[in-house]
Amino acid sequence: MTSESINLTTALSAFDALWSPRIVTRVNDYDVRIAKVAGEHIWHAHDDTDEFFLVLDGELRIALREEGGERTVTLPAGSVFVVPRGVEHKPSSQAGAAILMFEPTGTPTVGDRHEPVPARIDNTTGHVLGGPASG
Amino acid sequence: MTSESINLTTALSAFDALWSPRIVTRVNDYDVRIAKVAGEHIWHAHDDTDEFFLVLDGELRIALREEGGERTVTLPAGSVFVVPRGVEHKPSSQAGAAILMFEPTGTPTVGDRHEPVPARIDNTTGHVLGGPASG
Repeated sequence: MTSESINLTTALSAFDALWSPRIVTRVNDYDVRIAKVAGEHIWHAHDDTDEFFLVLDGELRIALREEGGERTVTLPAGSVFVVPRGVEHKPSSQAGAAILMFEPTGTPTVGDRHEPVPARIDNTTGHVLGGPASG
Repeated sequence: MTSESINLTTALSAFDALWSPRIVTRVNDYDVRIAKVAGEHIWHAHDDTDEFFLVLDGELRIALREEGGERTVTLPAGSVFVVPRGVEHKPSSQAGAAILMFEPTGTPTVGDRHEPVPARIDNTTGHVLGGPASG
């Protein structure tokens, strides 16, 4: 981790891959991750952790399967949302977005339960920003 | 906590108090807090937790007392920094800033060790956004 401040716009310009989060820094045993997204992720759930989303640019939608049925939360740039643990969700962004996430280190992008993972989705616990997996 | 997305600009417009964080949402046992700041905080240290800062608007400076001496990290809007646990630090913003923080629920704003707390600094573990302590 760097001991200098990190500009998120610069950090985002360091990679192009979609649905492939980069770890920009750590807070105790949590990661702060950023990702570029476009199109649809997959339905998945994290059984043991909430997941925090902040939209840095563009608009993100998060479809949720809750007790009462299915609904979609819309997050314009500058808004935040927490998906509670255990809730099946599917992020998407028709026109593309840049997002910041806060979640325990080691949390897989596809959760503990998920649909089959297509090639467009990176099944990862996050890549180090600027590391060899960047692209 | 709301089950809708939260717009940070709207949330910031709900209060005016400086150095008095509002809890916008929770992630497991962590708070996501926002604050308006201007002028100087006080030297303090959190012995048991790192502290994450994201600058939403304006510019924040964080003075640090490290082994090698004292230095100041500058965070323009859109940049992030983590103060490691145990490190004495003093945030400040000459022209004012809006910031977002991640830290464990219950973390006091003045840390575990600190200078005397002047009236301009709110010694708190964060107020609920829109709650009776807002102002």
